Amino acid sequence: MTARSGSISEFPAGKTVLASSVAKIYTSEIKKGIEVLGRSPKLVGFLANSDPAARMYAEWTGKTCQEAGFQFELREVDKEDLEDAIFQANDDDSVDGIMIYFPVFGNRQDQYLQQVVSKDKDVEGLSHLYIQNLYHNSRYLDDKKTKKSILPCTPLALVKILEYLGVYNMILPYGNRLYGKTITVVNRSEIVGRPLAALLANDGAVVYSFDLNGVQMFTRGDGLKLHRHRVTDVEVKLEDAAKISDVIITGVPSESYKFSTNAIKDGAVCVNFSTAKNFDPSVKTKASLYVPSIGKVTITMLMRNLLRLVDNKASPAKESL
Amino acid sequence: MTARSGSISEFPAGKTVLASSVAKIYTSEIKKGIEVLGRSPKLVGFLANSDPAARMYAEWTGKTCQEAGFQFELREVDKEDLEDAIFQANDDDSVDGIMIYFPVFGNRQDQYLQQVVSKDKDVEGLSHLYIQNLYHNSRYLDDKKTKKSILPCTPLALVKILEYLGVYNMILPYGNRLYGKTITVVNRSEIVGRPLAALLANDGAVVYSFDLNGVQMFTRGDGLKLHRHRVTDVEVKLEDAAKISDVIITGVPSESYKFSTNAIKDGAVCVNFSTAKNFDPSVKTKASLYVPSIGKVTITMLMRNLLRLVDNKASPAKESL
Repeated sequence: MTARSGSISEFPAGKTVLASSVAKIYTSEIKKGIEVLGRSPKLVGFLANSDPAARMYAEWTGKTCQEAGFQFELREVDKEDLEDAIFQANDDDSVDGIMIYFPVFGNRQDQYLQQVVSKDKDVEGLSHLYIQNLYHNSRYLDDKKTKKSILPCTPLALVKILEYLGVYNMILPYGNRLYGKTITVVNRSEIVGRPLAALLANDGAVVYSFDLNGVQMFTRGDGLKLHRHRVTDVEVKLEDAAKISDVIITGVPSESYKFSTNAIKDGAVCVNFSTAKNFDPSVKTKASLYVPSIGKVTITMLMRNLLRLVDNKASPAKESL
Repeated sequence: MTARSGSISEFPAGKTVLASSVAKIYTSEIKKGIEVLGRSPKLVGFLANSDPAARMYAEWTGKTCQEAGFQFELREVDKEDLEDAIFQANDDDSVDGIMIYFPVFGNRQDQYLQQVVSKDKDVEGLSHLYIQNLYHNSRYLDDKKTKKSILPCTPLALVKILEYLGVYNMILPYGNRLYGKTITVVNRSEIVGRPLAALLANDGAVVYSFDLNGVQMFTRGDGLKLHRHRVTDVEVKLEDAAKISDVIITGVPSESYKFSTNAIKDGAVCVNFSTAKNFDPSVKTKASLYVPSIGKVTITMLMRNLLRLVDNKASPAKESL
């Protein structure tokens, strides 16, 4: 091997950051929130499929919530009974938050079920109102700006990770803290990739969003002259977008997919939210910071959303004080 | 005017940051340092020219140092007597720091005089040892790493400004915090531009350094594989470097020079250290953050260096405790 070919250990600059490092910041904030509240909010999870992986995930989220000081109840119901079960939980004052372990039917019926969950108990932030607020860059639920809108857990987790990694520039005004950053996102699912691209562009970034259907650019325009992002179809190769990107975020659900290390700009920040490893270990020869998975931050955001829902419900009483 | 042509007020995203905001952070640190020290260190400034601007600058630095809690003494001497006067101050235990208001002779004699100042009293950080340490990315004066090398005030001020502006990513390891950033510097003087480019490249940036003689690239290489920067002559147009630069720093001593606003990457950070305004007011239509001048930070770094010199002198005693 010549000196120039370079094994990974010759490039000590790349640093791996684990999701747990980011999560623990919010874990203590959440514990404090529960203390201040003086009671343990209750989350109900609905499991209506027989996939052992879904059950394992449900048990893990339950355990994590309980360790943090929440009550968690897993309700296993038949697919056909799920809608009624959600209605019941919506009406039950002892339930503060509701989540569903998808897929249930694995088709559009699942989107319907998601909207059955009361927005006041929607810890996943997938109710239409919240998603609409996200796309429109409306951050509050009320004119007085006392109640913050709920953001979907995975995109929110990615935002918090980018804050932790110093990608958000805290000296810029709130709402513009990604101004000057170019970000490539490989995934444009309705649950994560698309809302994520919108969130990042609303915060000031130029985002190139890739999926099998093509490439879209999300941006608030030169000088951030738009209040919210606009989306345009563009013709850009993934490698060309990557070469000008300060941040690369991947979410490709395939073990065989690997993002080309060669295409990464030297010193870029790379984050993978797929359960598969979308980056090759050589990513650290190019990236300054690399986050291999984000699950622990996602569940922390779920708990944070639960506290926010409780808080938003309590706000009118606060105002009358 | 059409909607697309855009007056400045249509682009609210650009933010001006004044040097005083950055300086005040260090001012309180310096006050605390003097308190801990329990005495008021003495800075002697030598004025050996009759330029009224130099006198005004000397008086301003003197006033600022006194307000911060230092003793300041301006010694006006004839050019021909300056070397002896410096020797005397070098040997005088009551003098902690020495600075010279240049130009004196306005030629290489001035560089000679600068090296006459004892390195133990060189608040400007221009002694050969300090400059050599800077270029070699050696941050300490001793093997035990108890005494930090002194950095020249203006390049140091620019580093502290970039830290304040969030350009240094504090989650990256110390020494690599500009990894992934591209910076254009317009000025390659021996006092500011060249050491600045070296400092920024040593901290991980790719720096394009421009002056009338051409363009040089300062970098530690892909993956920061070098411990210190290397310099290569490159053929790059200023506009092309600017378009890929996250930061643009100018120091052109001419009122008629203006950096082309069009060439600035949307969302870039722009800092001018010339006393002339090198950026047009329209800079804010492109820049996310703009620092129009840096003088107040530079003098704060002078005072910080003075405290460090006192500290370095005291260290052997500390070690023997």
